[in-house]
Amino acid sequence: MADSEPLPSLDGDPKAAEAWLRDVFEIIMDEAIHKGTRTSEKVCEWKEPEELKQLLSLELQTHGEAQKQILEHCRAVIHYSVKTGHPRFFNQLFSGLDPHALAGRIITESLNTSQYTYEIAPVFVLMEEEVLKKLRALVGWSSGDGVFCPGGSISNMYAMNLARYQRYPDCKQKGLRALPPLAIFASKECHYSVNKGAAFLGFGTDSVRVVESDERGKMIPGDLERQIKLAEAEGAVPFLVSATSGTTVLGAFDPLNIIADVCQRHGLWLHVDAAWGGSVLLSQTHRHLLDGIQRANSVAWNPHKLLGAGLQCSVLLLQDTSNLLKRCHGSQASYLFQQDKFYDVALDTGDKVVQCGRHVDCLKLWLLWKAQGGQGLERRIDRAFALAQYLVEEIKKRKGFELVIEPEFVNVCFWFVPPSLRGKQESPDYSQRLSQVAPVLKERMVKKGSMMIGYQPHGTRGNFFRMIVANPMLTRADIDFLLDELERLGQDL
Amino acid sequence: MADSEPLPSLDGDPKAAEAWLRDVFEIIMDEAIHKGTRTSEKVCEWKEPEELKQLLSLELQTHGEAQKQILEHCRAVIHYSVKTGHPRFFNQLFSGLDPHALAGRIITESLNTSQYTYEIAPVFVLMEEEVLKKLRALVGWSSGDGVFCPGGSISNMYAMNLARYQRYPDCKQKGLRALPPLAIFASKECHYSVNKGAAFLGFGTDSVRVVESDERGKMIPGDLERQIKLAEAEGAVPFLVSATSGTTVLGAFDPLNIIADVCQRHGLWLHVDAAWGGSVLLSQTHRHLLDGIQRANSVAWNPHKLLGAGLQCSVLLLQDTSNLLKRCHGSQASYLFQQDKFYDVALDTGDKVVQCGRHVDCLKLWLLWKAQGGQGLERRIDRAFALAQYLVEEIKKRKGFELVIEPEFVNVCFWFVPPSLRGKQESPDYSQRLSQVAPVLKERMVKKGSMMIGYQPHGTRGNFFRMIVANPMLTRADIDFLLDELERLGQDL
Repeated sequence: MADSEPLPSLDGDPKAAEAWLRDVFEIIMDEAIHKGTRTSEKVCEWKEPEELKQLLSLELQTHGEAQKQILEHCRAVIHYSVKTGHPRFFNQLFSGLDPHALAGRIITESLNTSQYTYEIAPVFVLMEEEVLKKLRALVGWSSGDGVFCPGGSISNMYAMNLARYQRYPDCKQKGLRALPPLAIFASKECHYSVNKGAAFLGFGTDSVRVVESDERGKMIPGDLERQIKLAEAEGAVPFLVSATSGTTVLGAFDPLNIIADVCQRHGLWLHVDAAWGGSVLLSQTHRHLLDGIQRANSVAWNPHKLLGAGLQCSVLLLQDTSNLLKRCHGSQASYLFQQDKFYDVALDTGDKVVQCGRHVDCLKLWLLWKAQGGQGLERRIDRAFALAQYLVEEIKKRKGFELVIEPEFVNVCFWFVPPSLRGKQESPDYSQRLSQVAPVLKERMVKKGSMMIGYQPHGTRGNFFRMIVANPMLTRADIDFLLDELERLGQDL
Repeated sequence: MADSEPLPSLDGDPKAAEAWLRDVFEIIMDEAIHKGTRTSEKVCEWKEPEELKQLLSLELQTHGEAQKQILEHCRAVIHYSVKTGHPRFFNQLFSGLDPHALAGRIITESLNTSQYTYEIAPVFVLMEEEVLKKLRALVGWSSGDGVFCPGGSISNMYAMNLARYQRYPDCKQKGLRALPPLAIFASKECHYSVNKGAAFLGFGTDSVRVVESDERGKMIPGDLERQIKLAEAEGAVPFLVSATSGTTVLGAFDPLNIIADVCQRHGLWLHVDAAWGGSVLLSQTHRHLLDGIQRANSVAWNPHKLLGAGLQCSVLLLQDTSNLLKRCHGSQASYLFQQDKFYDVALDTGDKVVQCGRHVDCLKLWLLWKAQGGQGLERRIDRAFALAQYLVEEIKKRKGFELVIEPEFVNVCFWFVPPSLRGKQESPDYSQRLSQVAPVLKERMVKKGSMMIGYQPHGTRGNFFRMIVANPMLTRADIDFLLDELERLGQDL
């Protein structure tokens, strides 16, 4: 019978399995951690999709492969992956490879449990609460609630659902058709998850009223006030303002205190999407950018971005102390949240979320914090601000570089103006030609593997580069390299 | 200035960081992998919450701690965590510690990228598609679409949103208020995420019509037909049936072919929640349990459960070839999904989801499959079925054990009847007293650390144990141990 047959692969041979895992770890140390963070190595090894498929032998087959062959697959996967921990990876709102956070991630994967009951995640239930408490304290709350979510978009959706439930508890049972038309307010610079959430949660994207931003990307509170009145005049019920602390492209911080005044006047839930900017709360020098955040009802904050905790580490924090999360999301599944357990079932936090099984996301941040302390993390953030400022100064000094705006955060947006376009600002096709520069340079840098930096159009502006200073290992030399390399790559344009 | 100050901790000392990571890896190998999978070690080390808080030194402080101290934290975190890879962990729908899947998870964490563009996740964009193609083929589809989701609950919600969008594309923009009242159908044995999803997506839980199940937990198609007509008579528009392949407690498989007939007759979207049972598709012997699944519009399947890929590994598969996922969820963020990239932007799959950043969940399954082959995975599943059957036979042989139902899957539900209750079935308080047994035994086994098995009440039945045979390392000796240990723990009751 099947249960007495010999097992294939490493099954049933724990010693061989342990030896094999050691081999894998050596490959990871060499390819991902050592080479993956050295400037002497490439940040990426570009291949066309069809070629890459062949190189990876992607196909899944009936027969298992030899252990040696699997090791080669591991090596290839790492080799052809982008090295996001590399000092020349500037492409996203995350970068760098912190050893303590990584240790937390590897331990999490080795323990492979689900964050829903004290029964099977005792350490992580307590740890999640401790980490959330610390983050709430930075927001300015001595009490409250919160939960780790699979990314900032879902954190933002949680806020929408909680705001809706708080005002209309019936919605959980009766749905949106039992409610008046609702209106959500966010600036045109807000993250696209506000729209995605409005669609997913059944409001529809039309329910999102777009509030004007100023030239720096900050929400204009006067226009918020106007939009609220307009929505009311059209028969909609305003219930939620989603402000942003650290917009995705420009890195702008909405004026939270003035927005909170508006919310207070109209009785609206204030959510702050601080997915990107929340980590600035750790810096005594720069936390003023989020002044007023303590007046929010909810805050989304992704420590996997500026703090480098690793994907994904995203929290939703709440000022609420009425168990709103559990009332809004709970469904008391009797197979998981038995009420006759021998310990305090308030420790079974799984019913706070709309998920069932939930990945453990607190350990990586806890271990990082234990190692760095609040002070070490603050130093990293201050350093990132200082390096961003250094980049701004260098851009101003160099011919062929033009700032999009003076940044207030670590997003530095700028154009590289190639030799053929310099002094041609008055030419009618200048903007259009300038917009074609970034995609060409991007292709060149990726195929060379020298660095990665993002670009995008924005409003009426054509493509420009968005430099993100997030990797704590960055030095002025890396900033200089960025500018030098753009000059090298674009000298013939 | 801040960017020229010395860095704390391991910052700026890559050699020390690498040496420290090696120390962490040794701790993981010893505590989590070696001890964590040995029957000579405890499956859990129970501590009361207050004591555990002290043992873990949870508090986060201003100053960073020494590297040696951080290593001790790593050791303590593992020591006090439940060992879900232990051969005596029967508590959840996942168990075991596969070395190849674990290697995939560790590599994923080391690479720390986001699954949204070919630009920064070239390997994983191609790999996700390959894995999805393989899983779709097992469902019976030669084409289609799909995506990895953060857990089965969210996969189920995706299905609800897609079904809604396909019928009423306007909903994305105009919301549910522009639609007629909608009705969702699921059996009373369905997973609680159907209700959570109905609330979260704005339908309201009232929109879920509960269909009767038979005594084995299978949906009764005749009642489905009745409920559909009833909903229509009440003015609601039926649009979605969520059938279950492998219910959470009893492990029941709904009769998909007959349900598909009903759906076809009424023009309804058929979603199959095969989060638990989907992996049975790999077994030629047992896949008949899911006969008819190829007629579904969507399938949710969690390889982190029976296949042991590791949390989280959950897919939503679609028969659709019209780009429904992207049309339904997309919002074309210009900073991420630039259309003037130098490669085929169809490879940027991130706009298929409601998230933005997305954890890479395909590598662990891919590597596991490469090592085991379809055949090795099939052997594991057949072995689990055979061991479950062995357990059933042993239960029937032993005094004091009573089956709840004859299982068709690897969930074996049974009561342990302690000596004082044997032969007292006719006593008026028998059921109530029997229901108190499982919680007491659970407390005893956890405090002893000898094993973990779940229990729950179910319908009119009082608490019974639900044994899950999922860990591929299990042997008959472990099954015997389970029964012997329950007898030992309950001999005085």
